[in-house]
Amino acid sequence: MNQTIETLLNHKSIRKFKEKPVSAEIIRTLVEVAQHTSTSNFMQSYSIIGITDPQVKAKIAKIGNQPYIAESGHLFILVVDQHRNAQIAKENGVEDVSVSGSMDRFMIGYSDALLATQNMIVAAESLGLGAVCLGSILNDAKEMIQLLKLPEYTFPVLGLAIGYPDQEPQLKPRLPMEVIYHENEYQQTSDFSEELVAYNTEVETYYDLRDANKRIDSFSKQITGSMSRKPAGRMALLEYLKEQGFLN
Amino acid sequence: MNQTIETLLNHKSIRKFKEKPVSAEIIRTLVEVAQHTSTSNFMQSYSIIGITDPQVKAKIAKIGNQPYIAESGHLFILVVDQHRNAQIAKENGVEDVSVSGSMDRFMIGYSDALLATQNMIVAAESLGLGAVCLGSILNDAKEMIQLLKLPEYTFPVLGLAIGYPDQEPQLKPRLPMEVIYHENEYQQTSDFSEELVAYNTEVETYYDLRDANKRIDSFSKQITGSMSRKPAGRMALLEYLKEQGFLN
Repeated sequence: MNQTIETLLNHKSIRKFKEKPVSAEIIRTLVEVAQHTSTSNFMQSYSIIGITDPQVKAKIAKIGNQPYIAESGHLFILVVDQHRNAQIAKENGVEDVSVSGSMDRFMIGYSDALLATQNMIVAAESLGLGAVCLGSILNDAKEMIQLLKLPEYTFPVLGLAIGYPDQEPQLKPRLPMEVIYHENEYQQTSDFSEELVAYNTEVETYYDLRDANKRIDSFSKQITGSMSRKPAGRMALLEYLKEQGFLN
Repeated sequence: MNQTIETLLNHKSIRKFKEKPVSAEIIRTLVEVAQHTSTSNFMQSYSIIGITDPQVKAKIAKIGNQPYIAESGHLFILVVDQHRNAQIAKENGVEDVSVSGSMDRFMIGYSDALLATQNMIVAAESLGLGAVCLGSILNDAKEMIQLLKLPEYTFPVLGLAIGYPDQEPQLKPRLPMEVIYHENEYQQTSDFSEELVAYNTEVETYYDLRDANKRIDSFSKQITGSMSRKPAGRMALLEYLKEQGFLN
């Protein structure tokens, strides 16, 4: 096993950071790494917004309902960006840009942004930094859009908070490989209860540092809870996507 | 700069592979690495399908219109998987699982699958393998769904072909950092022509190994071409998503 793979297998989300700031050089390196990630058709359909203004950071922490967002060393917001490409096409005479009318352009930009995010995480961790993905910015996509002044054909994807770790979480146990990995076609499981018995017990022994060292619910319980929730902000994502010019 | 970051900054998509097969141990390591990637709310809402059947591989190569898919050392298809979680919730008494009715569950699974994909790419490259992302599987999502027998609440995301590289592509020049990276809010550019002059020239000097060493079009020309195309298969993605139980 090489060092890169060791880093990847030891990934833990970090939610408590030291006050030490992250240098401009490191931020630049992470953005460079993001830019060297594969993008769909070489179209680079994403943008990265670095949040340096503490007030903006605080507002995003509120949207995500996660105070540690405000205390991170640096905060990146990744966005689908078809605005730039649409503008380039329009400047070159294309009147009817193919952004709306399909999921396609949205999915392409979403994909570009996410692949780049993961590369930034890997780079940050290889430098001894900790990182956490913030899907929570989509709790209120509309406010994120207003806050970051995201124009037509752009959409927030994920936040990425990095910084020097001030906690040492346990490695979180993952589903058994055979549940995730299929061969040649999707393998239907008629009933998951048997597959999950050992895993549920394993998950229950994991101490979640987020919640004052309390043990967490079994995987099945967590899934059951989550799959029955329908938070209003999340249910409105499709509507917000349309407002940004996608899917019309 | 450490070795991991060096690997990331030197990423090149590989589209020609040696006949040497990829060992089962490496495939296992890559799936393990995928599993250690962050997932939204720890829900692990994705699955990976490894394609070992040459006939299935050939069919996917046809869908992607890329013969090298069939010649790769190993082919992975990443899929959004809310089917498993929905089933677990149903087994635990939730009648109305929150998968349809919103973009949310789709975006969560899509995000999980893509972050995992990038980690697999990094791990593969750290082992001296080459990799290429295959967004082209979505040229015909419906056929992919049938081919891989993808049930309700699942959707193909991206293919990932890996293998021992049999080509040495140039490093592809990326957009200037200031075009991608914004601070605190999205920086609108009224006209991109100035920003792109030097970059367009740089892109034109890049030799694309895909096309018999011919030089490629400037970035602006590529974007202009692409943004005016509306391939039927891509335009149907929203419809196929609904057929799979999302967004209804």
